[in-house]
Amino acid sequence: MCEANAYLLKEDGEEELVFENVDRVLPREDGILMEDIFGKKKILRARIKEMALVDHKIFLEAI
Amino acid sequence: MCEANAYLLKEDGEEELVFENVDRVLPREDGILMEDIFGKKKILRARIKEMALVDHKIFLEAI
Repeated sequence: MCEANAYLLKEDGEEELVFENVDRVLPREDGILMEDIFGKKKILRARIKEMALVDHKIFLEAI
Repeated sequence: MCEANAYLLKEDGEEELVFENVDRVLPREDGILMEDIFGKKKILRARIKEMALVDHKIFLEAI
């Protein structure tokens, strides 16, 4: 499997795990839609700041 | 390993493989910086349109 976990970067520098086992990601103008390997969806008002796929990490920042 | 391959979506609907074994991704205002598992870097004037991580795919569109 090659899913990743999504973390929201907070203003204080902390990383908050917001969604696990992310498979599909669709960036949109107002945010980001993510779907995990179980078909569960989540939409956040955020954008991708950085990804480190070998570490299974997607870092998001609020928009 | 959990790297992905980056494909550029062309206007005719074709997918052009532009970078393989992508590990790190940094979206920027003018484009996207990618680094593969060997440390090789590539910058494209593109943004992420969609990702299907279980399929190891990152779909980019030109900006």
